[in-house]
Parts: sequence; structure tokens; C-alpha cells
Amino acid sequence: MQFNALVNGHVLVMDGPERVGGENNGPIPKPFVLTALTGCTGMDIIKSLRNAGKQVSDFTLRVEGEISKHPPIEYTEVHLVYELNGDKNLQEDVLDAVKDSQEKICGVSNMLKKILPLTWEVVYNGEQIFSNKNTETSLLKPALSNPVGSSAY
Amino acid sequence: MQFNALVNGHVLVMDGPERVGGENNGPIPKPFVLTALTGCTGMDIIKSLRNAGKQVSDFTLRVEGEISKHPPIEYTEVHLVYELNGDKNLQEDVLDAVKDSQEKICGVSNMLKKILPLTWEVVYNGEQIFSNKNTETSLLKPALSNPVGSSAY
Repeated sequence: MQFNALVNGHVLVMDGPERVGGENNGPIPKPFVLTALTGCTGMDIIKSLRNAGKQVSDFTLRVEGEISKHPPIEYTEVHLVYELNGDKNLQEDVLDAVKDSQEKICGVSNMLKKILPLTWEVVYNGEQIFSNKNTETSLLKPALSNPVGSSAY
Repeated sequence: MQFNALVNGHVLVMDGPERVGGENNGPIPKPFVLTALTGCTGMDIIKSLRNAGKQVSDFTLRVEGEISKHPPIEYTEVHLVYELNGDKNLQEDVLDAVKDSQEKICGVSNMLKKILPLTWEVVYNGEQIFSNKNTETSLLKPALSNPVGSSAY
């Protein structure tokens, strides 16, 4: 079941788990959509801060996607958690960078927003400083499950 | 600029090229969307053939995505090429498997079809046996550029 994908000169391995006849030599394909999302918006944040001559001490992105119950199995809602630590004075710069990515720059976010509710929150030095999860998904189930990936800077 | 993504217990590296401050230690993030597409539909084909007790001798998927000219940079059209070789008697099974994936099973295809023209063609033993590119994109530019990935079985 293994597929070797050649992307920008780099090889990525995808495979299925044993229960569907794969050998688990790589991730299953669908979460690569969410991986693209984390990388796209994550690099936006780093670039924005770098351009301003600023830097956080660490940055972790977590993403959770809800999938449909029947084929074709697709994502039906996605939630992003930006977790950053750094100097207290950078809090506003970080929040601005995240908002710019989500509202103007990140193409993967923009694609997904056309087909599903994409919500996000920002946790800075352990404290949640922004979330649009409740406001944008008030008609949806409050709890997301199926965590499928995370990116650490 | 490097991000290490943990997906299903596997680590994927994403990075930017040198010209944007990265070190090219992995692919850029956006093409992971197309990688997901190739893996999703590719595994559908293999599973369908396996379930019928059949197997092709080799299988390569190529995918080309056109991107927007202004931020947010996103895919605006995508074309898939399924290239398979095998016994001549399998041609119809292969075509049926591809159609089932595209029309019923592949969740990534279904997501993308909601936001852009997704076309596909099938080449079996070097001969094109199906294409919906001209019929579905007659109003679009005939030539796609920016090949970003391929998967080989």
C-alpha cells in the first residue's frame, strides 16, 4: 500500500495501517491536508516575526479535524491551536501575525474555509489570548476529536 | 523555517527554500495538499484491485496544480494523471477503480472538487484510455503548469 511521493525534490512516504493491508511505513494520506495547513500558517507566523526582527522561544501548532461518517471520508471541521512562548512584549505581535495569516496570507486556510468551519485559538506563555471557536461553531458539536497531526517549530 | 510535523506517529519535515529564509530540509507545505490527493486516490485504486484479486505491474500518479497569482496563494485547478501498466485484460478494472475513487470514495478529491476544477486522465500501458480534462475545463487555460508532486506505487 506504500506510496513514495516526490515533492520539491523530497521523498515523502505514505502507507496504510496493517488493518487495511498496509505496513504503516508512513502516515495515511488524508492528514497531509492538515499538515499542509499547519506548515502554511506556521511559516507565515515565523516570517512575519522575522520581518519585524522578532523571535519567539518556541512554537507548537496542533490541529484537529473532524471527519465525515460515510464515504467519501472528508474533513467536516478543523480547529488549530497556536501555542507559543516568548517575551511578554511580543504577545501583540504574535496575535497580529496569526490574524494576518488566517485572514490574508495562508492559502491552505483560505481553501479550507470555503468548505468547512476552520476555527483557531492562540495560547501564549500558557494563557489563551484568542479563540474564535465558540463564536464560529456555535451550531456545531463543541468537542472536536481525531487529533491527526502537529507541527513544532 | 523548518517545521517537524508528527502525523500518525511519523515525522514529516517541511521547510522553505533558501530564497525565503529556509534551508530546504523538506518540501514546502502547500503541495502536501496534492500529496494527500495522490495518496488518497492511489490507495483507493490498489485496494479496489486487491479486493478483486488483481494487481497491476506498476502505478505512477502525477499531479499538477495551478496556483493563484495573489495572496492568499491557493490552488485554482488541479489535474491528475494515473499511469498504470499491467495485463491488457485489466484495463476495464483499472478504469472502473479510478472512476469509483473519483466519483464515490476519495475524500480529498471530493473536498477539492468543491472549490476548484479537478480533472483526471488514465494512461494504461502507455495509451490514454480516459480523460475529462477538455470537457470539464473548456473555459480554462488548456495548459496546466507548476507540477508539484508525484506518487509511485
